[in-house]
Amino acid sequence: MKETSAEAISIKGGITAPAGFLAASIHCGIKEGNASREDMALIFSEHPAVAAGTFTTNQVKAAPVVVSMAHARAECARAIIANSGNANACTGAPGLAAARRMCRATGRALGVAEREILVCSTGRIGVQLPVDKIEASIAKLPARLRSRGRGAAKAIMTSDSFPKETAVEVVIGGKRVRIGGIAKGAGMIDPNMATMLCFITTDAAIGKADLGKALRASVDQSFNRITVDGDMSTNDTVLALANGQGGNPPLKWGSEQFAIFQAALDRVTAALARMIVKDGEGVSRFVDLHVTGARSAREARLAARAIANSILVKCAWYGGDPNWGRIIDAAGYSGARMRPERVRISYNGEAAVVNGMAAPTPAARLQAVAKKREFTVTVDLGAGKASHRIWTTDLTTKYVDFNMGE
Amino acid sequence: MKETSAEAISIKGGITAPAGFLAASIHCGIKEGNASREDMALIFSEHPAVAAGTFTTNQVKAAPVVVSMAHARAECARAIIANSGNANACTGAPGLAAARRMCRATGRALGVAEREILVCSTGRIGVQLPVDKIEASIAKLPARLRSRGRGAAKAIMTSDSFPKETAVEVVIGGKRVRIGGIAKGAGMIDPNMATMLCFITTDAAIGKADLGKALRASVDQSFNRITVDGDMSTNDTVLALANGQGGNPPLKWGSEQFAIFQAALDRVTAALARMIVKDGEGVSRFVDLHVTGARSAREARLAARAIANSILVKCAWYGGDPNWGRIIDAAGYSGARMRPERVRISYNGEAAVVNGMAAPTPAARLQAVAKKREFTVTVDLGAGKASHRIWTTDLTTKYVDFNMGE
Repeated sequence: MKETSAEAISIKGGITAPAGFLAASIHCGIKEGNASREDMALIFSEHPAVAAGTFTTNQVKAAPVVVSMAHARAECARAIIANSGNANACTGAPGLAAARRMCRATGRALGVAEREILVCSTGRIGVQLPVDKIEASIAKLPARLRSRGRGAAKAIMTSDSFPKETAVEVVIGGKRVRIGGIAKGAGMIDPNMATMLCFITTDAAIGKADLGKALRASVDQSFNRITVDGDMSTNDTVLALANGQGGNPPLKWGSEQFAIFQAALDRVTAALARMIVKDGEGVSRFVDLHVTGARSAREARLAARAIANSILVKCAWYGGDPNWGRIIDAAGYSGARMRPERVRISYNGEAAVVNGMAAPTPAARLQAVAKKREFTVTVDLGAGKASHRIWTTDLTTKYVDFNMGE
Repeated sequence: MKETSAEAISIKGGITAPAGFLAASIHCGIKEGNASREDMALIFSEHPAVAAGTFTTNQVKAAPVVVSMAHARAECARAIIANSGNANACTGAPGLAAARRMCRATGRALGVAEREILVCSTGRIGVQLPVDKIEASIAKLPARLRSRGRGAAKAIMTSDSFPKETAVEVVIGGKRVRIGGIAKGAGMIDPNMATMLCFITTDAAIGKADLGKALRASVDQSFNRITVDGDMSTNDTVLALANGQGGNPPLKWGSEQFAIFQAALDRVTAALARMIVKDGEGVSRFVDLHVTGARSAREARLAARAIANSILVKCAWYGGDPNWGRIIDAAGYSGARMRPERVRISYNGEAAVVNGMAAPTPAARLQAVAKKREFTVTVDLGAGKASHRIWTTDLTTKYVDFNMGE
């Protein structure tokens, strides 16, 4: 075994792949009429861990987000309790009390402090949680804790069509360190729902502040770069727990070993982010969009988001139509400065636009790319050197049907 | 007849309702395979007129926009020449030359100067205009000028399902003054298209600068408040011509008579703006959205636009689903400050949300509103006193089908 291996390797499993983490799931019946599906998940670290989290920047924050933001500040964290079927958002003071009761019940069941529990909910907005039912289920969860299985990844699903999990292993200071993660998608189900959740565990030895730095950097390169419909949920949450059971020399920000850990973490978050996009409702195409030639990183992001969220651009992609007119139009109103006469747009490297005008590439060549399940679009604004990358999707009639409510 | 009548009355016709304006249309065959449809329109003032215009703020401006922005500065204007089927956008130097040739040919045909002609194009982006064909058609247009008929309104249509025209009459200083207008919609047809065009004529006596002030104020209350898909075109243009043939005492900004003219003009632009929204592609519902309680007018607009352009909100409306969770979510990420615990949302006055939580209104009552063809949604952010109003639509599978390209 090398002292430190720069290359992370994929391993089986998800959040229980790192040493000392167990998970459990149960059917509580939070959403009526969903008779059998498991809807609660527990992730537990057998040893004290440190936590880090990134949370929705939406001003309307669900109650569990408010509670987890506070609990994530505690020195020690032991578990994450999560439910699907009800977002506990727009539920006022009773909602906040319910989120706290979930933490208290979980702490009691596991024999740890309430503030060592992080809580997440996803599902319907504006409906109070059935807290009594939930407390009864929480009491049963510790007996179900296991070191393998995809129960937790399934229990947090809403409209997801498959459970999302991944894990990697990397050698740091002669020790095997593992990072695992599960996520649920940025899709909708039922009226009033929309949430991206991601839980990451690692047995790396790393301080709380450094874990926070690594997580923020990683989220910025993954979950902050995906968009299916442009709507940011009230509940979006990414949580990471690190329990030090890997036995590596503690990671220090700025070190070479930290960079290796960061790269491994980035692989986990990127893999989960891609799964979320590919599992977007009704999605038929996955688009890797690069905006280059912007005056600043902020402007590159503005242009990328305007293009990726343009209803017209997304409709064109659905039809396999390499409609560069709609792309240049969206870039033009995005707020990012551009030099229209220098703009270049390409599909998988085939030039669609050169100097702001149609390139001589035969239309059939561009159409062949736009009809693929996955392709890359590059948009050079011709105004500077900054760039931004986003993973996005088309907009399909299936998406509209799925989200049209009752 | 009263000296000055504050109330404008609707009259028949459109741009030729005001005295001294004629219009013509012709089939040029700009878009191949569209054998019979007229695709060029000419609006002519028999007497010297003053012009005002508002143009797309998209950085990617079509060639005719660039030319008309310059020509609109001339002291005198005589005509508007417009074509559908080709937007003359992203066409570089040849496109600019083509737009100028259209003005030159029109000026020659009418015996007026090139700079007295305003030019507009709508249609496919990125394709050069067939200028020879267009010049030949322009030469035939003067002989077709008429004081009535809807030919011009029809010739500028792209995906519009009906021609849009309106006219009003108002008494100012004892004289009948008329304002007429035609428009084409914010819809798509073929790949690479999207444009809103509006042409307004009036026989009011009004100076160039004052006409500009009146037009900008009116556009701000109408066309700047509609959104179907959130995409702003490279060609959006509103032009107004005033030829003074009504014989009223010249209107002066700030006077009572000016206010009466402004109100009449606002009726014309509001009527055309509503027609455009209602004729949006695949639209099944028209939503009058009011955002109140914002910290500033800018923030009220941010929130209104985020809600009106949220794919999820629009999908819910399509299903007749009064999905307030998606509305509060969109307001929360819009960038407008809000007090979540004070937010109120209502559908046609029926409370859906009070103090940021579900109101006790029976769901069936809200659903009955959301299933109407037209309804009003009010969102109070609870943070201040500013407000903004937008007319918008749902997002339907028909829209996606229509815009999915080939």
